[in-house]
Amino acid sequence: MKRTITEENLLDLLLHGTAQDLQDTIDTIHPADILDLLHKHKEHAQSILNRLPDDILADIVEEEDDEDKYELLKRFSDSKQRHILDEMSSDEITDLMGELEEDEQADILKKMDSEDQEDVRKLMSFDAESAGGIMTTEFIRIFAKNTVKDTLQFLQKNTDEETTYYLYVVDREDVLKGVVSLRDIVTSSFDTPIMDIVNPNVKTVLYSDDQEEVAHRFEKYGFILMPVVDEQQHMLGVIEFDDIIDVIQEENTEDIHHLGGVNKEERVDSSVRESFSSRIPWLIVNLFTAVLAAAVVNMFEATIAQAVALATVMPIVTGMGGNAGTQTLTIVVRGLSLGELTKENAVEILLKEIGVGILSGIVIGIVVAFGAMLMESNPIFGLVTGAAMFLNMILANLAGYFIPVILEKLHVDPALASGVFVTTVTDVMGFFMFLGLATLVLPYII
Amino acid sequence: MKRTITEENLLDLLLHGTAQDLQDTIDTIHPADILDLLHKHKEHAQSILNRLPDDILADIVEEEDDEDKYELLKRFSDSKQRHILDEMSSDEITDLMGELEEDEQADILKKMDSEDQEDVRKLMSFDAESAGGIMTTEFIRIFAKNTVKDTLQFLQKNTDEETTYYLYVVDREDVLKGVVSLRDIVTSSFDTPIMDIVNPNVKTVLYSDDQEEVAHRFEKYGFILMPVVDEQQHMLGVIEFDDIIDVIQEENTEDIHHLGGVNKEERVDSSVRESFSSRIPWLIVNLFTAVLAAAVVNMFEATIAQAVALATVMPIVTGMGGNAGTQTLTIVVRGLSLGELTKENAVEILLKEIGVGILSGIVIGIVVAFGAMLMESNPIFGLVTGAAMFLNMILANLAGYFIPVILEKLHVDPALASGVFVTTVTDVMGFFMFLGLATLVLPYII
Repeated sequence: MKRTITEENLLDLLLHGTAQDLQDTIDTIHPADILDLLHKHKEHAQSILNRLPDDILADIVEEEDDEDKYELLKRFSDSKQRHILDEMSSDEITDLMGELEEDEQADILKKMDSEDQEDVRKLMSFDAESAGGIMTTEFIRIFAKNTVKDTLQFLQKNTDEETTYYLYVVDREDVLKGVVSLRDIVTSSFDTPIMDIVNPNVKTVLYSDDQEEVAHRFEKYGFILMPVVDEQQHMLGVIEFDDIIDVIQEENTEDIHHLGGVNKEERVDSSVRESFSSRIPWLIVNLFTAVLAAAVVNMFEATIAQAVALATVMPIVTGMGGNAGTQTLTIVVRGLSLGELTKENAVEILLKEIGVGILSGIVIGIVVAFGAMLMESNPIFGLVTGAAMFLNMILANLAGYFIPVILEKLHVDPALASGVFVTTVTDVMGFFMFLGLATLVLPYII
Repeated sequence: MKRTITEENLLDLLLHGTAQDLQDTIDTIHPADILDLLHKHKEHAQSILNRLPDDILADIVEEEDDEDKYELLKRFSDSKQRHILDEMSSDEITDLMGELEEDEQADILKKMDSEDQEDVRKLMSFDAESAGGIMTTEFIRIFAKNTVKDTLQFLQKNTDEETTYYLYVVDREDVLKGVVSLRDIVTSSFDTPIMDIVNPNVKTVLYSDDQEEVAHRFEKYGFILMPVVDEQQHMLGVIEFDDIIDVIQEENTEDIHHLGGVNKEERVDSSVRESFSSRIPWLIVNLFTAVLAAAVVNMFEATIAQAVALATVMPIVTGMGGNAGTQTLTIVVRGLSLGELTKENAVEILLKEIGVGILSGIVIGIVVAFGAMLMESNPIFGLVTGAAMFLNMILANLAGYFIPVILEKLHVDPALASGVFVTTVTDVMGFFMFLGLATLVLPYII
C-alpha cells in the first residue's frame, strides 16, 4: 500500500526521505504540487530535482509555464534532458518549442529520437490556434479483432500513454473506424468482442478547425478526448479536455482584453515596455475618435459661447450614450462568443435592443431633461437635453448591436475595436444632436 | 457490430428505423445531437420521443437547457416520467428543480424513489455556487480488499454510473481513504491487489468551497473528477470536469458583464423587460457620476465663457483618461480572476502601472499639447492641455489599479462597478485639473 503524505511533510520527504520512501510515494503526489514546492523553496530546488525519476521530472516540466519550461530543462545534463524529453508528450514539447529561439529549438530537437522529432516538427507546422496546433500525437490505437480481455492485457503491457480514456480503432491505413471508451471496456464482460462495443459514429475535429470551434464541440458533447483527423479521416492525434480549458480561458482573456482596449497577449505581470506597447496603439486610435468628437464641438463653439451651460451638460449626453452602447456591445459580444446569437434570433435581438434603447432613453431622457431644466430654470433647455439624450440612447443600442455583428460578418473579432467604434458613434452623434438642437432653438435658451 | 449512421439519415432512423435498428444504433448517437434534431423538427419531436428508451430520454433531458427541462419531461406520462427521473443524475435533477415553482418541485419529488428524493433535497440545501451545489451524488465506492480482477467484475455488474473514471475507496463510515483511476485499473495485471494501486493522497474539495475556487483546482491539476467531502472527510459526492467548464464560462460571463455594466444573469436573448431591468440601475449609477463631473464643469463656467475652446478640448482630456484607466482596470481584473495578481507581485505591478501611466502620459500629453497649441495658436493653451492630460493618464492608471484591488479586499467582485469608479475619477479629476489649470493661466489663453 502507498503512503499517505500531508502537504507539510512533502518537502521533508522530497529532501530527506529514503529512496524506498520516495519510490513508494512519488506517484501519489501531483507534479503541480512538487512544482509549487520548487518555486517556494528555490534553495532546495536542485537537490529535490536530482532525486526525482525521469517520468516525474517530465511531468513537472509539463506543469511549468511554457516560457519557463526550457530554463527548468537546462538544469539537467544533456543525457538527462534526453530522458526527460522522451517522457514528455509531443504537444508539451511543441508548446515549449514555441517559446524558443531557432538555435534553442535545434538544441531540443537533436536531443529527441527521430520519431518524436518528426511528431514535433509536424505539430509545429500547424497553426498554433487550430486543432492541429493543440493536439498531441500520443493516443492508443487498437485493431478490431480482439476481445475485452485481450484489450485489457494489451493495455497492461502498454502503460505509457496518458490518454487512455478512449481507445481508437483504425484500419491498416490509419483511417479512424471507431472509438471505445475505457468505461465500456471495464463494464463489459471479458469475452465481449471489442467490435460489439465499438462506436463507429465517432465525433472528430479536422486538424485545421479553429480552437474556439473545437472548444464549442467539447462543451456541447462533454467529451474528455476528441480525435483529430485529416480530410480522409486519417487519425492525426487527440485533444484532451484540459487543453480545452486552457483554450476557453485564452479565448475569454482575448475577449475581455479586446473589450478593455489592450492586446490579448498582455498579462498582469508584463513589463512596462510590453504593457506600454500593448496599450499605446489603442490609445492613439481613441485619440483620433476623441479629436473627431472635439471637431464636432468645435463646429458649435459660437453656440456654446452664447450658452455656456451647454458645455456643462454635453458630457452627460455623450457619456450616458457611451455607457448604454457599451452595455449592448457587451451582451452582443458575449452572445457571439458563446454561440447564443445566431442567424435565427438575430432580428429578434435587434428589436429587443431597440426596445431597451427606447425604454432607457425615456427614463434617462426624462431625468436628464428635468435636471437640465432645473439647473437653468429653462424648460426649452431641458427639452433639448432630454431629446438629445433620448435619441443618443437609441443610437447607442443600435451601434452596440450592429458594430460587433458586422465585424463578426467580416471575420474580425467582434470584441476587437467594437468599443472604440461604439463610443465614436455616441460621442460624435451625441455632441452633434445636442449642440445641433441647441443651435436651432438658441434664442430660447440664452 | 454497431451501425454507422450519418447525420443526414439520423432523422430517418429515429422516425422509421425498425426497433432492432434503433436498439443497435441508439447508444452510438450523442444525446445532444438527438436534442438538436428534436428542436429542428418540432413536428416529429413527439413521435421520436415515443420510440426512445428511458435511459436515452434521461440523457436528452439532461442535455436540455435547465429552464426547458421540465417542459420536455411533461411530455411524458407520469409513470414514464418516473422512469426517466430514475435514470437521471441527482445534480441534473437539482438543476431542473432550481427552475421550478414550489408545486412543480413537489410534483417532481413525489415521482422519485425515497433515496433519490433525499439526495436531491440534500443537494438543494447547498449554495448553488458552492461545491455542494454543483456536485452529483452518483459515484463509485469500492472497498479496499479486492484485486483488479474482482474490481473489474464488480464494475461489469454495475454499469449504471457515468462517473467511472475514478473509483473511491471508503471505509465503513464512508470516510474517503483513497482513489484509483480507471487507467490504473486497466494497466495493472488482474491479480494486483487494489490497495497496491490506491492513491491515499486524494485531492478533495470541501462542500462549502466556492465554485470558482473549485474551478481553479481543476485547472491546476487537470482532473476529470474531484471528490467533495465534509469537514470529517466523509464522501458526499463528486464534481465532473464538464460542470467545471460550465462554471468557468459562468464566471467569465460574470466578469465580462460586470465590466460592461450589465447584470451577470442577462443573456443575449433576454426579453426587453429583463434587459432593461439588468441595465437601468447601472445607467442610473453612471448618471450620478456624470452629474458629479458636470458639477465640476459648472464650477468653471465663467472660465469657459471666456475661453470657449476649453469646451472643445476638455472631453479629450477626460475621455483619454477614461480609456487608459479602463485598460489598467481590464488587466488587473483579469489578473485577479486568473489568480495571477498575488500579494507577492502586487507592489511590482503597481509600479509597472505607474510606469506605463507616465510613458503614455508623456506620449499622449505631447500629442494633445501640440494639437491644442496649433488649434488655438497659443502655446500656453497647449501646455495646459498637455499637463492636464499627462496628470490624468497617471491618475487613470492609479485608479485602474487600486479600485479593483480594494474591491477584492472588501470581498466585492472587482469587476463589479470598478468601471464606474474609474471613469468617475478620470472625469471628475480630469475636468478639475484641466479647467483648474486653465483658470490659473486664464489671462494668457483668451
